[in-house]
Amino acid sequence: MVETTRIVLAARPVGAPTPANFRLETGELPDPGPGEVLLRTRYLSLDPYMRGRMSAAESYAPPVEVDGVMVGATVAEVLESRDPSLAKGDVVVAYSGWQTHHVAPASAVRKLDPDAAPPSTALGVLGMPGFTAYSGLLKIGQPKPGETVVVAAASGPVGATVGQIARIKGARAVGIAGGPDKCAYVRDELGFDAVIDHRAPDFADQLKNAVPDGIDVYFENVGGAVAAAVFPLLNTYGRVPVCGLIADYNATEAPSGPDRLPAHFRRVLTKSLTVRGFIQTEFVAEMYRDFLRDMSGWIGEGLVRYREDIVDGLENAPAAFIGLLEGRNFGKLVVRVA
Amino acid sequence: MVETTRIVLAARPVGAPTPANFRLETGELPDPGPGEVLLRTRYLSLDPYMRGRMSAAESYAPPVEVDGVMVGATVAEVLESRDPSLAKGDVVVAYSGWQTHHVAPASAVRKLDPDAAPPSTALGVLGMPGFTAYSGLLKIGQPKPGETVVVAAASGPVGATVGQIARIKGARAVGIAGGPDKCAYVRDELGFDAVIDHRAPDFADQLKNAVPDGIDVYFENVGGAVAAAVFPLLNTYGRVPVCGLIADYNATEAPSGPDRLPAHFRRVLTKSLTVRGFIQTEFVAEMYRDFLRDMSGWIGEGLVRYREDIVDGLENAPAAFIGLLEGRNFGKLVVRVA
Repeated sequence: MVETTRIVLAARPVGAPTPANFRLETGELPDPGPGEVLLRTRYLSLDPYMRGRMSAAESYAPPVEVDGVMVGATVAEVLESRDPSLAKGDVVVAYSGWQTHHVAPASAVRKLDPDAAPPSTALGVLGMPGFTAYSGLLKIGQPKPGETVVVAAASGPVGATVGQIARIKGARAVGIAGGPDKCAYVRDELGFDAVIDHRAPDFADQLKNAVPDGIDVYFENVGGAVAAAVFPLLNTYGRVPVCGLIADYNATEAPSGPDRLPAHFRRVLTKSLTVRGFIQTEFVAEMYRDFLRDMSGWIGEGLVRYREDIVDGLENAPAAFIGLLEGRNFGKLVVRVA
Repeated sequence: MVETTRIVLAARPVGAPTPANFRLETGELPDPGPGEVLLRTRYLSLDPYMRGRMSAAESYAPPVEVDGVMVGATVAEVLESRDPSLAKGDVVVAYSGWQTHHVAPASAVRKLDPDAAPPSTALGVLGMPGFTAYSGLLKIGQPKPGETVVVAAASGPVGATVGQIARIKGARAVGIAGGPDKCAYVRDELGFDAVIDHRAPDFADQLKNAVPDGIDVYFENVGGAVAAAVFPLLNTYGRVPVCGLIADYNATEAPSGPDRLPAHFRRVLTKSLTVRGFIQTEFVAEMYRDFLRDMSGWIGEGLVRYREDIVDGLENAPAAFIGLLEGRNFGKLVVRVA
């Protein structure tokens, strides 16, 4: 019997999550059965979608149950294997959630080559966030050379990757980020063509000036005031892949009026816009192999850069996650668990 | 010199158009020059999009100027031709607008075979409305056998055609119409699988009961309360071609709250919806030839039926158009001009 330390959902949040919504506890794991592996978590990924899983509202995935372990992707080490495909010491990507140990079917994890890239990147640029950027931009956004692509949270793992792939495809990348440090990083390190601070009082005007030819692709991962400034600038036949709406995740009720929905539809109609929600899993079968090949190559050539924001200790995951929803992280947020 | 009787935009409407927004007048036309034809209008098409052209708000096409002739597609007879491709007596589809005579380049009209189908159908099921239904449904909606397609204004030229093509493609067609006569026509004459009266107090409940497997394609041509009832019923990967929003065309300002836009985007995200505005002209080069072939065939086989609502006299066009925006027509609204 192995003991796991885990963080469970103590209560569903109303509005922004607080520390009281989480509880650290210990529990015992069964021994791995045939075909299973015992894992020790090295890294836990923290991502905005987890806010959705904390709520009971209908979504594309079932919610975490109250008193259940918080879900999440992990990089883990195999401590014990009862499956021929994996051996003790192997490093894998798993979905162990917010805990130190886990027993999983070997078929539910993917073995990593720890020499190919730092293992934590399997949670970021070479994992779900990177693939969200890759699949949503290429499959739905379809940027053409010379077009303008706008993405918010541009220093985060999805936004940063969207902009860099847009540039690889010959498009102009305009990023939106919060604060001078993040903006400088997006412009100077990631090489975006322009970057706007959404905290600036004249944000909408700055954005307009930064896109003299309008916007052809808006990769939507934030919603809120940023989206409100972007939509009027979309060109005819503009494409809007929608992968997240972090600005609205903590909302407890519909905002007061006016009701902007009719005007939104009028714009969709008169500009022949495509607005397309997606979850990256839709494209895994079709594109994941290409993604790993392309992205590994781009990282190797220096065409795609990434930044990690690593927090030490599972016990610090709740505070880090609360900060993520407020934009306090800088780069892909990962918890080093062991 | 030929005299034309025409209806011009006397003043831009604020809210619903009134007779005072139109003015009947006469004017003189120049003689046709080389390559031009003189046309006498037989039929004038009245369509919801014309409401947009009466306003100065930005749209996909420039507005009609004040004192300018109201735009519109027509079926016309060639009175005089100065182009070898057309002869006196030919019947053509033109874009003469709301007037009895017009001088146009021969290249801007399309010759009809008056024996193939009643010429007025070139303004309806075999014209722009039919092609709007055909291209939007097949290119964006992409109904698959067994799926459920919902369309409003189901007794109108677009909605009626959408539902019938959906059935040809093996999908289930659910129509929405206003009043018992239109509903009976949609069910009994057009053969939709179900039809709901949007005036019923329990409309939303009736709609829910009529789509036990949810909705896969919502062909959006009305907006408003109908759209509000439909969206919660859309299935994952639902498709929403947006070709019109007649319920909102007369709105003078954004409705009071709550603001439904964030909830709409949340649904787009969690259901992986595709919402795609379009104007049929986008697909003409790619699909118009197929459309004419398919639709002529379907009409010949009795698989697609249509209904015209013919009003006599150009002077009655304003009242007929005002009625169209209120849903008072029953079938494709056409003015018999000569």
